[in-house]
Amino acid sequence: MITELNNPQSVDYEFLLQDAAIHASLMREGELSSVALTQQVLSAIDQLNPKLNCYFAVDREGALAAAQASDARRQRGEVLSAIDGLTVAVKDNIDVKGLVTTAGLGLPENTPVAQRDSFVVNKLRRAGAIILGKLNLHEAALGATNDNYHHGRCINPHRGGFTPGGSSGGSGAAVAAGLCAFALGTDTMGSVRIPASYCGVSGIKPTRGAVSIGGSRILSRRLDHIGPLARAPGDLSLILPLMAGYDPGCAQSANVLFEQWNPNPAELVIGYADVTQGLGVTESVKSAYTSALARFADAGAQQRRQDLQSLDCASARRAGLMLCEVDLFVDQQPLLREHPEYFSPALRKLIAYGIGKSAVDFASADRRLDKAVVKMAAWLEDCDFLVLPTAPQAAFDFCEPAPAGQADLTNMANMSGHPAISVPMGTDGEGLPLGLQIIGPHGSDLQLIALAQWFAQFMPRPQPNLGLL
Amino acid sequence: MITELNNPQSVDYEFLLQDAAIHASLMREGELSSVALTQQVLSAIDQLNPKLNCYFAVDREGALAAAQASDARRQRGEVLSAIDGLTVAVKDNIDVKGLVTTAGLGLPENTPVAQRDSFVVNKLRRAGAIILGKLNLHEAALGATNDNYHHGRCINPHRGGFTPGGSSGGSGAAVAAGLCAFALGTDTMGSVRIPASYCGVSGIKPTRGAVSIGGSRILSRRLDHIGPLARAPGDLSLILPLMAGYDPGCAQSANVLFEQWNPNPAELVIGYADVTQGLGVTESVKSAYTSALARFADAGAQQRRQDLQSLDCASARRAGLMLCEVDLFVDQQPLLREHPEYFSPALRKLIAYGIGKSAVDFASADRRLDKAVVKMAAWLEDCDFLVLPTAPQAAFDFCEPAPAGQADLTNMANMSGHPAISVPMGTDGEGLPLGLQIIGPHGSDLQLIALAQWFAQFMPRPQPNLGLL
Repeated sequence: MITELNNPQSVDYEFLLQDAAIHASLMREGELSSVALTQQVLSAIDQLNPKLNCYFAVDREGALAAAQASDARRQRGEVLSAIDGLTVAVKDNIDVKGLVTTAGLGLPENTPVAQRDSFVVNKLRRAGAIILGKLNLHEAALGATNDNYHHGRCINPHRGGFTPGGSSGGSGAAVAAGLCAFALGTDTMGSVRIPASYCGVSGIKPTRGAVSIGGSRILSRRLDHIGPLARAPGDLSLILPLMAGYDPGCAQSANVLFEQWNPNPAELVIGYADVTQGLGVTESVKSAYTSALARFADAGAQQRRQDLQSLDCASARRAGLMLCEVDLFVDQQPLLREHPEYFSPALRKLIAYGIGKSAVDFASADRRLDKAVVKMAAWLEDCDFLVLPTAPQAAFDFCEPAPAGQADLTNMANMSGHPAISVPMGTDGEGLPLGLQIIGPHGSDLQLIALAQWFAQFMPRPQPNLGLL
Repeated sequence: MITELNNPQSVDYEFLLQDAAIHASLMREGELSSVALTQQVLSAIDQLNPKLNCYFAVDREGALAAAQASDARRQRGEVLSAIDGLTVAVKDNIDVKGLVTTAGLGLPENTPVAQRDSFVVNKLRRAGAIILGKLNLHEAALGATNDNYHHGRCINPHRGGFTPGGSSGGSGAAVAAGLCAFALGTDTMGSVRIPASYCGVSGIKPTRGAVSIGGSRILSRRLDHIGPLARAPGDLSLILPLMAGYDPGCAQSANVLFEQWNPNPAELVIGYADVTQGLGVTESVKSAYTSALARFADAGAQQRRQDLQSLDCASARRAGLMLCEVDLFVDQQPLLREHPEYFSPALRKLIAYGIGKSAVDFASADRRLDKAVVKMAAWLEDCDFLVLPTAPQAAFDFCEPAPAGQADLTNMANMSGHPAISVPMGTDGEGLPLGLQIIGPHGSDLQLIALAQWFAQFMPRPQPNLGLL
C-alpha cells in the first residue's frame, strides 16, 4: 500500500477513502509521509475531477511544498497539530492567499488573487494543514444544487448526473471521493449539512461565532457559518477545535467555549419531530429516520416530540432568503453594477427581488428569524439534543427541479445560531446516502461530534460509485 | 434616625442618599426594616416627584406589601438575596405586571396593564426587591433629554430646568434624589450611562445578551440593553448578577459568564482618547477627563492612546438611528397606524425617515455598525480597558438644543456589545456632575464595577440640590 502511494500514477482509492484519523495515525507511526499522501490525492484529483468538477483550482506546487515542510517538521519532532500533513480543500467563497476567490460567480481569468488567507485558513495553515485548492459551489452560495451557471455542475460521487447538494457541493463531493481529508464549507441555510447528507459524509455547522467568517464572501452576516466536512464524524473533532477562536477582525466572531464532556446516549433526552406531514419528507428519509430514532431508544435515551410545524418553515425560509439577497447585494454592489454579466440571470433576479424591498420588510424578516431563535431555545429547554433528518430527501437528478423545502430542516439552526451536525444514516432504496442531523445547545459542538460518532458505528459507511461516473 | 424613619411624614434625605449597600447592612443588623425604608422612600417621592417628574406611576400598596413580606422573610432567616427589601424603580418601557407600560408614548388612561413581569423584573422580584413603580423616559427611549412630549420634562435633581439626560432620565433622577435604591434603565445608544453621568450616579450597560431584554419595548433589537443605575458603583455589583441570566424566550439573550477576578489598576493598560478635537467635548469634561486619567497613571496603569476619530462617530450614529427608527416602527406599527396621536410629531417624523429607507439602506447601516465592532475589538486588543468621558458635556438647560454628538462616546459599546459603565468624575464649574466611562471585554462587567469603585474613592459624591428645586 505504502509502495503504491509512492507511485503518483497509481491511486489506491480504498486507502484514500479511509478516515483522516487513520492517515494521521500512519503518519505518526512513520508509515506514511505527507508528500506521498498528497501526491496520491493530487493524482486522484487528476483522475476524477474532470468527471466530478468539484475543484475550481488546485495548488499543486503549494500543496507539495507544504507536505514537504510537514514531513520535515515531523522528522524534527515538531508536529504542529493532529492534522499536520493532512489535506484540506476550501470552498471558493473563502479566501486562500494566492488564489482567486470566485464565490461561484463568473469572474474573468485575470481576477486578482486573494492577498491574504481568511482567518480560518490561516489557522489551519499554522496547524500544518496542506491547503489543496478551491472547491466548486452553488453560485454565490445561494442555492443547494451546485448547478453552477458559470462553472458547471458538480457531480455527486454516488451517482452521475445527480446533485451533490449545495451550496458547498464541491466540498461534499471532494470529501466523498477521497480528494481531500477535510473540506471547508459555508453554511447559511444548511449548505454544509445538505451536501454532507447527499454525499454520505459528515459535516458540522458550528455554534455561531465560534469559527470566524472573516475573509469569506458574505451571503448573510446573520446566517453565515464556516464549517468542516470529513468522511468520518470523528475526523471533525480533529479539525474543528483548530478552526475555532475569537477573531477581533470579524464582527460576527465570538469567544465560544466548547463543552468538553462526552454525552452518554442512555442518559439523554432526545427531541424528535413528526415528519409525516408538512415538511416534505420522502418515504425513504422517514423510514431511515425512524430507524435512527430507534437506535437512540435502544441505547436508553428518552424521546420527546417537538412541534417543528409551529415554526412555519416556509415563512422562515422566505425571511432568511430576503436577508441573503439584500446582504449579498450590499457586499457585491460595486461588482454587480459594473459587471452584471458575472452574475447569472437567476441570481440577478433573486437579488432584484431583495433590493426592491423596504427597510421595514428587511427588519421584519430579521425579526421573523428571532421567532426561530425562541422556538429552538424552547425545544432545547425541553430536551438535550434535537435529532432530525438533515434534508427531507436524498440527492436528485439535475434534471429535476430542486424541492422548495430542501433547507427547511437545516436553516433553523442558522437562524438560532445553535451547532448542528449531519452524519450518514444509511441509504435509500437506490443506494443514495441519507443524513441524520443533531442539533444541540450553544457550545455543544464536540458533543454533537461524539454523538455522531456513536451513531456512525451502527451505520455502514456509504461508498461512492467512483467507477460508474 | 431609625425613629424618624418610622414617621413617614419626615424624610431624612441624607439617609436616603446613602449607598444601597449601607441600607442592606442596616437591615442585616436588624436596625432597619424594609417597611420603614420603603415608607420613607414613598414619602420622599410624594415630596419630590411633583418637582422632578421622574415617576409616572407608584405602586404604593404593592411596594408596602412586598416590604412587609421581605421583613417577614428576614425574621424567619430566609433572606432571598443581597437586595432583599431594597427598592427598585423601573423605566417605563420595561413591563411590570399590573402597571401600564407607556414606553413614554401618549397612551390613554385606559390602556391595559402588563399581564406579566419582564424577565428582569421577575428575577428581581424573586430576589426580594421592592418594585416601586414606573419611571419617566424620553419618548420611545429615542432621545437623550427626557423632554417628554406627552408626560412632561423630567428634571435633573442637581439643577432645576436642566435635563437629567436620557433616555432613562427618570432612572437617573430618581436614583440621584434618593427616590429608590436602584433604577432599571434601557441603553440603546447610551441611555443608561448618559443620565447616570448628568445626574451624578453610576450606571452600567452590561455585556450584550447578559441581561435579557425580554418584556421591554423594542427600540433596536441589535442595540438595546437593560442596565441598572445606583448611587454608588459598588451597589451595581449587588443587583447586576441578579439581573443576568439566559432567557430562552428572548432572541437576544445569551449565557454570558461574568469574569470574577478583581483588576489591579497598577497592572492595567488603559486605553484613552484624544478628546481635544472632533468629538465635541467641552472644556470642563476635558479637564475632568485629564484628571481622571492622571488617577490611573498615578496608580501605575500604563496608558495607550486609541484613535476614536477613526470610527467616524457621526456616520455610525446615523446608522444606529436608522436601525432604531425602523425597528421601532416594526414594533409599534399597529398602534402608530391606528393612533398616530399617541406619538409626538417629532417622533413620527423620525420614524417616517426610517420607513422611507430601503432594505439595502437598512442592511448597509447594520453593516456600518459592524465596523464599530471591529474598531472596538481592535482597541480592546491593544489595552485592557478603554477609559473615556461618558458624555461630551454636562447636563444643559432644557431651553438649549440637544448637542448632536451627545451619545457619540457611548453608542459604540452598544454597537459592539461590550460592557460599559459610567461613574461620576467630579463636577464642572457650575457644580454639574460629569461622568467617566470604562469599557471592557465581553463579560468584564464586574471588573468595570470594581474599577469604578476604585475610581470613586477619589471623587466626592455629587450632591443633588434637592432644596433648590
